[in-house]
Amino acid sequence: MLAIAVVMTAMTNKPAAKTPNIVLFFIDDLGYGDLSVTGALGYKTPNLDQMAVEGTRFTNFMAAQAVCSASRAALLTGCYPNRVGVYGAFGPASPLGLSPKEETIAELVKAQGYATGIFGKWHLGSDQEFLPLQQGFDEYYGVPYSHDMWPLHPWQEQAKYPPLHWIDGNKPGKEIKNLEDASELTPVITEHATAFIRKNKNKPFFLYVPHPLPHVPLAVSNKFKGKSERGIFGDVLMELDWSVGEIMKELKTQGLDENTLVIFTSDNGPWLNYGDHAGSSGGFREGKGTSFEGGQREPCIMRWPGVVPAGRVSNQLLSTLDILPTIAKLTGAKLPKEKIDGIEFTALLKGDESKSPREEFLYYYRKNSLEAVRKHDWKLVFAHPGRTYEGSLPGQNGKPGPSPEDHAFPEALYNLERDPGERYNVLEQNPEIVAELRKIADTAREDLGDDLQQKTGKNARPVGTAVRK
Amino acid sequence: MLAIAVVMTAMTNKPAAKTPNIVLFFIDDLGYGDLSVTGALGYKTPNLDQMAVEGTRFTNFMAAQAVCSASRAALLTGCYPNRVGVYGAFGPASPLGLSPKEETIAELVKAQGYATGIFGKWHLGSDQEFLPLQQGFDEYYGVPYSHDMWPLHPWQEQAKYPPLHWIDGNKPGKEIKNLEDASELTPVITEHATAFIRKNKNKPFFLYVPHPLPHVPLAVSNKFKGKSERGIFGDVLMELDWSVGEIMKELKTQGLDENTLVIFTSDNGPWLNYGDHAGSSGGFREGKGTSFEGGQREPCIMRWPGVVPAGRVSNQLLSTLDILPTIAKLTGAKLPKEKIDGIEFTALLKGDESKSPREEFLYYYRKNSLEAVRKHDWKLVFAHPGRTYEGSLPGQNGKPGPSPEDHAFPEALYNLERDPGERYNVLEQNPEIVAELRKIADTAREDLGDDLQQKTGKNARPVGTAVRK
Repeated sequence: MLAIAVVMTAMTNKPAAKTPNIVLFFIDDLGYGDLSVTGALGYKTPNLDQMAVEGTRFTNFMAAQAVCSASRAALLTGCYPNRVGVYGAFGPASPLGLSPKEETIAELVKAQGYATGIFGKWHLGSDQEFLPLQQGFDEYYGVPYSHDMWPLHPWQEQAKYPPLHWIDGNKPGKEIKNLEDASELTPVITEHATAFIRKNKNKPFFLYVPHPLPHVPLAVSNKFKGKSERGIFGDVLMELDWSVGEIMKELKTQGLDENTLVIFTSDNGPWLNYGDHAGSSGGFREGKGTSFEGGQREPCIMRWPGVVPAGRVSNQLLSTLDILPTIAKLTGAKLPKEKIDGIEFTALLKGDESKSPREEFLYYYRKNSLEAVRKHDWKLVFAHPGRTYEGSLPGQNGKPGPSPEDHAFPEALYNLERDPGERYNVLEQNPEIVAELRKIADTAREDLGDDLQQKTGKNARPVGTAVRK
Repeated sequence: MLAIAVVMTAMTNKPAAKTPNIVLFFIDDLGYGDLSVTGALGYKTPNLDQMAVEGTRFTNFMAAQAVCSASRAALLTGCYPNRVGVYGAFGPASPLGLSPKEETIAELVKAQGYATGIFGKWHLGSDQEFLPLQQGFDEYYGVPYSHDMWPLHPWQEQAKYPPLHWIDGNKPGKEIKNLEDASELTPVITEHATAFIRKNKNKPFFLYVPHPLPHVPLAVSNKFKGKSERGIFGDVLMELDWSVGEIMKELKTQGLDENTLVIFTSDNGPWLNYGDHAGSSGGFREGKGTSFEGGQREPCIMRWPGVVPAGRVSNQLLSTLDILPTIAKLTGAKLPKEKIDGIEFTALLKGDESKSPREEFLYYYRKNSLEAVRKHDWKLVFAHPGRTYEGSLPGQNGKPGPSPEDHAFPEALYNLERDPGERYNVLEQNPEIVAELRKIADTAREDLGDDLQQKTGKNARPVGTAVRK
């Protein structure tokens, strides 16, 4: 009887405790202000706006680090990227990657019987041992790293990058030879994602869609070319919104809409020195590659009809770190054996605003520099050298402007409630809060280290293939 | 037969062409970021959040000027404040006010048979000839000007202000003698507003609720004291949200909920040098008393079930100027005889985003200085002396910090799509756009003048009681 019941469950995809499908959109270099629902002008994102009408939008949702590979490692492992030894953005020739011994969301839910697929940009190591099929994904179709690491990048002729290929599973596929080929990124990924939904309609699935755009160089299919009043950046956003719409439509067509948690967010803020080819941080300070809010505060929408409140905005502090334990809780998956940094927020997801799941957040950047810490509405920025976009003219037409990396930022305390733009340093006035935040930093330094203080923590892994003890 | 039909219509309040009741909340010194739905932390505004779930939130909604009297004159007349001769904030002893010959929203809708009431702060002249009953309102209960113009203001002992009284119709009522008396502002106004709804449930009405708080000095009733994690500012916001909730509840109780357009916005941005006693501009630059976005970009929600789309966000450029002609259109009222600056946006209000009703906006400040002009996403700021909050420590516990008025702002061009925080001056890169915006300014200077250029326009009225030709 038991055996039959199990078979029946598998066949009907209606287990007694119904666990949702998960669709996770992770967009590249998308700024906080780049959706209509977060203030974009000159183009519309109707499908994402609709997602916000039907779901909850989060306004204090932090990428774990303001750069590509590190941010992706954190999303998939629930760990600060330095805990799992991923720093910055892996180059195409890098022998490094996220250690296959780290447990990803895909591995956790696969153990629960989920089908798992990634369609889009991986960027956690391009040698075969690091590719998604070795990290819990059943299927992969996409690009191995950012498509600016590419011999034909219009402004990087001198960087000798290898040819860029689509990867199908573990094998290189078609080469992306020019911007016209790159304009297929969004539609091809969309096609694979919707096919994955159709194929797995009778079993629970985890679909990860890390779109490579609007990372530069911008490319858009003819269908959307010239369609916005915001130049190619707006066109690209319209196409990405279309892609989200196609995937949402497929969920509805397959009758899976009601039992799917959809999460939409971005890996880091806009690459502002690309000017009209970059997004908007929505008023937050600085952008990609900085630990100011413009670098890490991301647009975020979650939708699950009947479970996640519709039309709501939540200002609770959350991070991409928190997605793994939340998915684990919702799917009944076991948490990774090793320590993680994520905090599950299922109660908040379901609308319980009475308790803040996350009290603190650490802003690590560069190799392993603790540039800032946050508790509730307070953010203490430590003196550090860093990239700044301010004071330089941004680039135009795809050519970047300067973004000096060695600006000396002084120690500063900001109240993100009264001053989300990080303009008013109130350090002098708040010695007790500074002391409290410094303690949080000291604990973090013991744990993960801090290059700014030449401090090696107990638990930050060496770069790349490091395996945890 | 005709006479009977008319009587029937009046009795049942169901005219063939159903015109809505109007409730207009106008909050004082409320910042863009001061609602939960726009990012506030440390307190919740559940009633306003619910209004946003049930209505449309506007993100490019501009107060016509970043100071009290001027902003109110514009709201009620649909004219830039200099067109109707109102500048800055009238002092208690000022012999000036908005000319009774100007036509207000109240006068327009009164001619259509609307009952009209204002409960809250007037600030368009405190001599009897200027009071609301002389400007189309049937009922008035409130304060004549800001309650910091008050002998007992904690930090302004030296300013010799006269006693502050409630005004009932045209007569002074109870004196507001201390902060405990001031803590009755929000509840008493709420009580009068709900009574007005009950009294007028059988005829169409225009209810204007200009709450005097969270303008300093902050005062809150015992019911909300200490209830937020954001000090008294958060407590005050909770009480204001409660007030909105009570008024919404009364509409429902009286069965008027479905046929009422509710508009919620603010007169200008936060008075930032009050620090923890001020609101948040939500990341926009500067605050009250400046023509940067933090001074004039206001939170705005409109709700009318079944007419205004629910749960939507609109990024179209609009202004308080546009409320008068829109209400006129909705109520069938005649527009004022003289030229106005407002543009009706009923199509947008009903969800048609295909056309932007407003292309341009003029940022006048000081007596009559054209400090900036906007077209779509471009804003050209002219070189001007102005208040700045940056570079000074904000005040604490109700005591203001410095806010120098003579900072020299250079000419600058900002793209508010990519750079809503006005951080990146791209003037050099965009000569054609600068030329276009300068033309808009020239036209404005011909019309309304510009003190920055010692230019007298044809149509800006003299200060105060000026009457149009």
